[in-house]
Amino acid sequence: MNNRICEILNIKTPIISGGMVWCSGWELASSVSNEGGLGLIGAGSMNEEVLLDHINKCKKATNNTFGVNIPLMNPKSSSHIEIVIKEKVPVVFTSAGNPSTYTQKLKDNGIKVVHVVANEKFALKAQEAGVDAIVGEGFEAGGHNGKEETTTLVLINQLKKIIDIPIIAAGGIATGEQILAMMVLGAEGVQIGSLFASSNESSAHINFKNAIINSKEGDTQLLLRKLSPTRLLKGGFYDKIKEAEDRGATKEELLEIIGVGKSKKGIFEGNLEEGELEIGQVSSIIKDVLSVKDIFSKLKEEYSTALSNTDKLIKTL
Amino acid sequence: MNNRICEILNIKTPIISGGMVWCSGWELASSVSNEGGLGLIGAGSMNEEVLLDHINKCKKATNNTFGVNIPLMNPKSSSHIEIVIKEKVPVVFTSAGNPSTYTQKLKDNGIKVVHVVANEKFALKAQEAGVDAIVGEGFEAGGHNGKEETTTLVLINQLKKIIDIPIIAAGGIATGEQILAMMVLGAEGVQIGSLFASSNESSAHINFKNAIINSKEGDTQLLLRKLSPTRLLKGGFYDKIKEAEDRGATKEELLEIIGVGKSKKGIFEGNLEEGELEIGQVSSIIKDVLSVKDIFSKLKEEYSTALSNTDKLIKTL
Repeated sequence: MNNRICEILNIKTPIISGGMVWCSGWELASSVSNEGGLGLIGAGSMNEEVLLDHINKCKKATNNTFGVNIPLMNPKSSSHIEIVIKEKVPVVFTSAGNPSTYTQKLKDNGIKVVHVVANEKFALKAQEAGVDAIVGEGFEAGGHNGKEETTTLVLINQLKKIIDIPIIAAGGIATGEQILAMMVLGAEGVQIGSLFASSNESSAHINFKNAIINSKEGDTQLLLRKLSPTRLLKGGFYDKIKEAEDRGATKEELLEIIGVGKSKKGIFEGNLEEGELEIGQVSSIIKDVLSVKDIFSKLKEEYSTALSNTDKLIKTL
Repeated sequence: MNNRICEILNIKTPIISGGMVWCSGWELASSVSNEGGLGLIGAGSMNEEVLLDHINKCKKATNNTFGVNIPLMNPKSSSHIEIVIKEKVPVVFTSAGNPSTYTQKLKDNGIKVVHVVANEKFALKAQEAGVDAIVGEGFEAGGHNGKEETTTLVLINQLKKIIDIPIIAAGGIATGEQILAMMVLGAEGVQIGSLFASSNESSAHINFKNAIINSKEGDTQLLLRKLSPTRLLKGGFYDKIKEAEDRGATKEELLEIIGVGKSKKGIFEGNLEEGELEIGQVSSIIKDVLSVKDIFSKLKEEYSTALSNTDKLIKTL
């Protein structure tokens, strides 16, 4: 038994690992693809040379479909697009930008295109641009986030009513029960970030992985609404931004506090005080650093149990 | 077929209408109970005399179980508690306060007690205090909200792992598919606010109901984090608070802007410019002012369809 996401992306299991900066290298992507999901390489934190290297290593490490996530606001996005075309990467997820810019070009080169959206408006735009599927990413997601702050529960329900192409749910998902809940709302796949960011195969620093599994409810919050809403894990960097926002800091002041290279410092170098720690709200549910293999086993088992438990639910309300 | 929430609350359908200020009078509560759900009278906006009047009218309008929601921070809460005991109201939902204050007293008087929580900590506290069930209310909910900003999708999943008593999901729910999604996460009932606030039987002003059904994605936002996080619909009052927060207004300044009687002015008197419009994120999904009867028909049909559609889902991931 299969669904449209599995068919379009040529995968067995409709679980996609998000293409996260400083986490999603060839090792994580190929491991996810080897488990039957779709692994994404996160181009957002890579220059051209590094991206090419990760694509080549990923090709060697898996015979299954994998993809690359390209944030379109990134100044390197046009050269990243050239690389994925040249390297015949089978799937590209685009995010943070206009879906009409590269969709046709990628499709003309036989690449499946999925665009990440946080609202109805961009979902319709992406569908119109001809993408094969969309990711609907809710308020729970780590890092950059939609201005509407629509949660995954509300967003997927809304999108399903207006969108015909398949929908992948993202934001706040780390269990098999949640995957089934998203399928009930009409999603045909899920994109999971935080859980894979904390996995053995993630290229994030162990300090960052430990910070994820030790986090508690309320430990991630959405800040930086005046610039681009961003979900951050609490820590020294968070405290500085929060203090500035509470006293009414301007965009310019906030940009100065952010500086450059802070997400690398936090996620890749493990400096939890000075670094920018982008991660999802669902971190509070994650209790262990697991291998990708164990994550897939856990999710599959939870999903199957939850699906068979639907027999015990009230038949008519 | 039945579940624990139906048994404990002695209702046929595990759908509860939230006890909302200026919306949830005897008419809404009795209509919901007459449809087989649990209607709640919202004591938060009532003095003793008004509450007593609504309880008496509700008793005359329905033979089914109904309840009263009592926000414990309200200065009138202790006299409200005396009234529900004296009037033998079968169910009391307590919120915004310490669940151990009145739970035993209410139970000693044969009243079922449900406490509303927004995080794990208070869920455990409520269970320990001996409540019969909890409402887990997520970030999507209208009005006062948890500091953690945990969404319903994440919250219900978390609570199910640590709580043994039945869980009612709230926040962001206005469709039958969403009800089933919450059941999949382990909830045994749902509390619905915005959809009932916009119903014919809600005592809110028609201007407020129209504002709900005309709202679009992003039109409600959580503000007032420095005082008590509150989800508001955009309008004149919202703009004033937002402008003040953006320039770093203190608690004192915010309290002065809020003033008194603003939720009555907005919700009950329909003054959309000066009034405080407390409503949930799911408003953007709601398109019509419906009768409670039609709301129940819609939710039941959507739930049944979604449940039978689970047959078409991928059996194993």
